[in-house]
Amino acid sequence: MTIQKKAAEAKNASIQLAAVPTHIKNSALKAIARALEAKKDQIISANQTDLTNAAKDNLAAPLLKRLKFQQDKITEAIEGLNSVIRLEDPVGVTSDALELDKGLELFKVSSPIGVIGIVFESRPDALVQISSLCLKSGNAVMMKGGSEAANTNRILADIISEAAIAAGIPKGWLALLEARSDVANMLSMEKFIDLIIPRGSNEFVKYIMDNTNIPVLGHADGICHVYIDKLANIEMAINIAVDSKCQYVAVCNAAETLLVHKNIARKILPKMKAAFEKKGVEIRGCANTLKIIDVKAATKEDWQTEYLDLIISVKVVDTLDDAVNHINTFGSGHTDVIVTEDKARGIKFMDYVDSADVFFNCSSRFADGFRYGLGAEVGISTNKIHARGPVGLEGLMIYKWRLMGNGHVVSDYSGTNAKTFTHRVLDKKFNE
Amino acid sequence: MTIQKKAAEAKNASIQLAAVPTHIKNSALKAIARALEAKKDQIISANQTDLTNAAKDNLAAPLLKRLKFQQDKITEAIEGLNSVIRLEDPVGVTSDALELDKGLELFKVSSPIGVIGIVFESRPDALVQISSLCLKSGNAVMMKGGSEAANTNRILADIISEAAIAAGIPKGWLALLEARSDVANMLSMEKFIDLIIPRGSNEFVKYIMDNTNIPVLGHADGICHVYIDKLANIEMAINIAVDSKCQYVAVCNAAETLLVHKNIARKILPKMKAAFEKKGVEIRGCANTLKIIDVKAATKEDWQTEYLDLIISVKVVDTLDDAVNHINTFGSGHTDVIVTEDKARGIKFMDYVDSADVFFNCSSRFADGFRYGLGAEVGISTNKIHARGPVGLEGLMIYKWRLMGNGHVVSDYSGTNAKTFTHRVLDKKFNE
Repeated sequence: MTIQKKAAEAKNASIQLAAVPTHIKNSALKAIARALEAKKDQIISANQTDLTNAAKDNLAAPLLKRLKFQQDKITEAIEGLNSVIRLEDPVGVTSDALELDKGLELFKVSSPIGVIGIVFESRPDALVQISSLCLKSGNAVMMKGGSEAANTNRILADIISEAAIAAGIPKGWLALLEARSDVANMLSMEKFIDLIIPRGSNEFVKYIMDNTNIPVLGHADGICHVYIDKLANIEMAINIAVDSKCQYVAVCNAAETLLVHKNIARKILPKMKAAFEKKGVEIRGCANTLKIIDVKAATKEDWQTEYLDLIISVKVVDTLDDAVNHINTFGSGHTDVIVTEDKARGIKFMDYVDSADVFFNCSSRFADGFRYGLGAEVGISTNKIHARGPVGLEGLMIYKWRLMGNGHVVSDYSGTNAKTFTHRVLDKKFNE
Repeated sequence: MTIQKKAAEAKNASIQLAAVPTHIKNSALKAIARALEAKKDQIISANQTDLTNAAKDNLAAPLLKRLKFQQDKITEAIEGLNSVIRLEDPVGVTSDALELDKGLELFKVSSPIGVIGIVFESRPDALVQISSLCLKSGNAVMMKGGSEAANTNRILADIISEAAIAAGIPKGWLALLEARSDVANMLSMEKFIDLIIPRGSNEFVKYIMDNTNIPVLGHADGICHVYIDKLANIEMAINIAVDSKCQYVAVCNAAETLLVHKNIARKILPKMKAAFEKKGVEIRGCANTLKIIDVKAATKEDWQTEYLDLIISVKVVDTLDDAVNHINTFGSGHTDVIVTEDKARGIKFMDYVDSADVFFNCSSRFADGFRYGLGAEVGISTNKIHARGPVGLEGLMIYKWRLMGNGHVVSDYSGTNAKTFTHRVLDKKFNE
């Protein structure tokens, strides 16, 4: 089947899927979980083929690890499905109800976005997680995975698609794209695809963002900061900086730059250096940092680099405002932290830093859908519209305005003797 | 000042404006209203210059009418400002509050988007309305108006900008762009501009959408449908069709196509023809329509044309599903109406039609920010993300995740003896 055919089918399926009741969507998710369990030997064997091929191709060890989808990952995926089943159905929720005039009632009701295009790299678990979130939120999905995981992705997509269709989900709701050229084709399908969510390296996400008119939800860089205020508790600041940098270095919510208020720099920097060195972190300091501790010098390039590695840049700043300016200039709008004992200064920082996640006295690593209690997540967004920060089901929703009348026409509300609108808030839901 | 300089200033101003308290924003709006009143002679005279130039250039009558900004429009603009003052401040509203663990509290708090780029055609009232909505929502704004209105726009922008700055709004919050080349420059300023709202002809909006990576809020086409179900009340159906088509033909929420269920076609079409002819509407019918009434034949082109004129296309459909399919195929996702006495069929239509506004037994012309009770509107969106349908202040907002801790680090929540999250919903607002 051509990608155009698949896309048209997905669009049709999305219209039907938008109206599928909750119990059928949940039955389908349960059926998927059962099918993954029942066919786990086939999945493991398909994944083994991918792993063998990848080893032959000398795939790097971290990539091999991400590609692996054996018994423990299958168990995790099934647990993930169960948690998606437990989430409230986000479709059909009335967020506003207003009487415009007697008998003319307006409801703002949540609805799925339509067709979600996903492009992800080697991790096959992303396929299970994203397809289940799309199903629960009533969206059809077109997915392109990494070619290293071709066999694993194909069997997972077949199992998930078929189990859901057998449970009553419209045919065509999930399409797996396999050709490399399909990505470029997808990017020009604004007629069929309503939102693209890319998951992968920064370069890859940037490529997607630069090459499509379809809205893209996601983030390229994750340049996160920890600002240590003059009124910080020293021990807390060191703990938070170390956790933000080291708890998991290869992720977008890890800190890349430490900003230190000049009044506290002499006191904290030697201790910070000792703490980072214990963890094997290389420090690159600004000129004022170098006057206090003996570390490598930072260049301007360092302020705009996402190391994703055991490296941190350190800059001494004169004021809280300077810290905010540095973050708004060099940051990526992802997650930024202030450590201070002065709550008013903390709130000022949170008011003026223009990022998705602004944190007071805690680690940047908390910026995550599971930790935020969103259940699963489709990704983390640095967009300034629609959804920001960790994105769960809510980011896959939009709404319709539903207006119920009884023959009401606008000409009665204009000219002489025009009727007036009541605009009275209603305490009810659509179709109640 | 170069556009780059203006854009950088607007970005800086947006950071400050995001934290300006409600009372200062309202004082600024009052100051703008007073200044418009005080300087109305200068405004009227500047507008007179534009009108004289436009008449010399033989500008079409409807455009001249839109360009006119004299005493009555100034009064309307001041009324509009007063209504924006009365709207609740949309900034700083806590929509979610969750305890992640003891002492670690997460708040989802509304915040402005940042810098809004507006490109609008000749109507100078749009400048006042949009700049006041941006100010109230804490967004900086860069505006490019039509060159016909250059003198009017310049004096309005100067008055509004200066009155607001004198009342405490950050310098640079409003930038007027005057060169034609500024539009193209704006479209590539993703570093500074967070959202573009184009207002103008379909071709113009399409040009903007096709030529920028910045998110665009708006609509190109408005191809709206009225579907007359087999169970429709005939008289109501005719009233709604006539109002939807004729109450104001030149607007996006006017109906362009009438879909008629075959079971009711013989009964209603002759009456519909008489009603439309009384209003001077040309009917273009499908083959089955032509069997019932003597009208011009429609071509496939008609189903995808926004006439914005006294023309309507009519198609006889076999089923409600066929009507839905026609709308989802040829419509523009703007506003679509069902007329039926059967509420279940009405709701089915509303569930399956994938449009921003889905109406039951009322005119398509109700799709409008004022009628929806949103106060003023920045436009109507056919986007599938962020904001859909008439867009008021809410469409100019996004949110920040604010996390308040007391030294919390992620390493305590992983590995052996990991702490667990409480994820307890809090009944409080940020900073309460």
